[in-house]
Amino acid sequence: MSKKHNFSAGPCILPQEVFQKSAEAILDFNGSGLSLLEISHRSKDFVAVMDEARAIVKRLMKLGDDYEVLYLGGGASLQFAMVPFNLMKTGNGKAAYTDTGTWAAGAIKEGKKLGTVDVVGSSKEDNYSFIPKKYTVGSDYDYFHCTSNNTIYGTQMREFPKVNTLLVCDMSSDIFSRVIDFSQFDLIYAGAQKNMGPAGATLVVVKKEILGKTGRDIPSMLDYSLHIAKESMYNTPPVFPVYASLLTLQHLDKNGGIAAAEVQNEAKAKLLYDEIDRNALFETFCNGEDRSLMNATFKLLDDTRKEEFDNAWKAAGISGLNGHRSVGGYRASMYNALPIESVQVLVDVMKNLN
Amino acid sequence: MSKKHNFSAGPCILPQEVFQKSAEAILDFNGSGLSLLEISHRSKDFVAVMDEARAIVKRLMKLGDDYEVLYLGGGASLQFAMVPFNLMKTGNGKAAYTDTGTWAAGAIKEGKKLGTVDVVGSSKEDNYSFIPKKYTVGSDYDYFHCTSNNTIYGTQMREFPKVNTLLVCDMSSDIFSRVIDFSQFDLIYAGAQKNMGPAGATLVVVKKEILGKTGRDIPSMLDYSLHIAKESMYNTPPVFPVYASLLTLQHLDKNGGIAAAEVQNEAKAKLLYDEIDRNALFETFCNGEDRSLMNATFKLLDDTRKEEFDNAWKAAGISGLNGHRSVGGYRASMYNALPIESVQVLVDVMKNLN
Repeated sequence: MSKKHNFSAGPCILPQEVFQKSAEAILDFNGSGLSLLEISHRSKDFVAVMDEARAIVKRLMKLGDDYEVLYLGGGASLQFAMVPFNLMKTGNGKAAYTDTGTWAAGAIKEGKKLGTVDVVGSSKEDNYSFIPKKYTVGSDYDYFHCTSNNTIYGTQMREFPKVNTLLVCDMSSDIFSRVIDFSQFDLIYAGAQKNMGPAGATLVVVKKEILGKTGRDIPSMLDYSLHIAKESMYNTPPVFPVYASLLTLQHLDKNGGIAAAEVQNEAKAKLLYDEIDRNALFETFCNGEDRSLMNATFKLLDDTRKEEFDNAWKAAGISGLNGHRSVGGYRASMYNALPIESVQVLVDVMKNLN
Repeated sequence: MSKKHNFSAGPCILPQEVFQKSAEAILDFNGSGLSLLEISHRSKDFVAVMDEARAIVKRLMKLGDDYEVLYLGGGASLQFAMVPFNLMKTGNGKAAYTDTGTWAAGAIKEGKKLGTVDVVGSSKEDNYSFIPKKYTVGSDYDYFHCTSNNTIYGTQMREFPKVNTLLVCDMSSDIFSRVIDFSQFDLIYAGAQKNMGPAGATLVVVKKEILGKTGRDIPSMLDYSLHIAKESMYNTPPVFPVYASLLTLQHLDKNGGIAAAEVQNEAKAKLLYDEIDRNALFETFCNGEDRSLMNATFKLLDDTRKEEFDNAWKAAGISGLNGHRSVGGYRASMYNALPIESVQVLVDVMKNLN
């Protein structure tokens, strides 16, 4: 487990094994006498890394050959543009989005640059404190876009809607954290830097049959079809981030996969939310069924206790607990690699604040 | 020096100190008790890394505050699109390019998606074996784009043309290798993975005054102005690649800067080209003044000696010497971090092949 109790919202804690093995690979990769950082991305050893990194995603998600897996650079924010470039029809394109937080709003902004965007559900007026659910999406939309977990606000979609168009989801902050039927989605993307690696790589999982239907002349680097044709090697990929992502997913795979991670994540979240609900000094930002298992946002009811609490959790070796500037208070991010012992340390600090 | 003599074309050899220090940072960053891979990109320590990584580029290039430095994800190939998105006027935009190799052609392809592209100089018909020079570029062009070094073909621009429009240069494979008046350029970009770090980060150096003049609605992630406003932190940057790039540039800085690297690079290239010219068994792909100091492309005149030569250089601990598939033969990439001792080992192997 980590030397510190790292509740950072991302980049975030990864398995200690990933730190060890990736540091070793930088000094000597696969016993080659070369650093991972100095080998050609076309070398046999790195092509094997990329192939396995793509394959393990399909295995973990239980997806078939109708899906393709890509590792791209540029971050999930680049996907905000790539999704409409690849799926929004030219001329009279129209897409439906839910607005559930800062990143959802970022995706909406990019969609609007290429077509009509209808926001079919929004919690913006309530400072994004819940997940909107009462909406329908008809077949006149090119696609529907949602954000599965809202890192900043601490809300999470428990279920995904049945829509009569393509279902696209930004899973950046809760991918691989719970058992989901991934085959309900047509396109999933996620920045690696939460549950699947360090910053610098972005995962895209896409159903092949949905591509190539917009009539749009897409910039090459934004074209999923081209990246698929080149097996994620159209240009030099982010070698180190992809390798560290593979190590992270291998660690998940050999420790029981997504199902085992889900059990741990539910236990961690229950431990913390039970204490917040019990402790009269704290309250959560988001109540009820939409609370995120990944990011618990909460605050002190009495702000004069702030210095005391801050000193206490820092003294306990906790880091990364400050809330995002647009919400304030505290945020405990409990990604896959955070041990339940770290949550217990936080809960003990909260209990002792009386 | 490296455990192997690594002539890889990129990703490529970096200073051994970069491997050591970046591996250490993965285990414990700045004595924080946290890995570089698990810290927030908004943490004080990483903001300092990004600030210094941007500042050191300006110092090494001797550029003033009229330029901005960005580290972006996505690779130089994404710049092929970002350049026209930011500089090509909407409606009747027109740009001039030289076609000097695979990557130049890639840049041209993306330019054509947004406006008119005139190829004012090309060596395509001669398999890119020289640098075209006889052309003029008038003020009716939005910008002129060139590629300073052609990694695949082994040619390099010695001088840059005076043009009556913006001068844009892809310096991916020879940046920081030689003394240049960088202030003659309006925009410079380079994938990090040759002279300035591992794969996964891309450097952009841009004169601020040239931006915001196209009337184009640019996708946010492709908009230089937005990245500048957010100090290269619009979204989560590729943390590890940026840190390793900073280490690489700090190594360059404390070892005499670009001027000292140039002396070494000229000595290494002379050593190898002198042997190729002397040795009746070999000939270069490119002759005369356009030969690259970074990538020497050459071949055996008698292909029946191939197995003997290949066995000899492999036995000498040399790696990465095979030519690119579109040229064949051999390619010795002699980036900043390659010691002259490695070139001597190669030259000795060539001398002994008699």
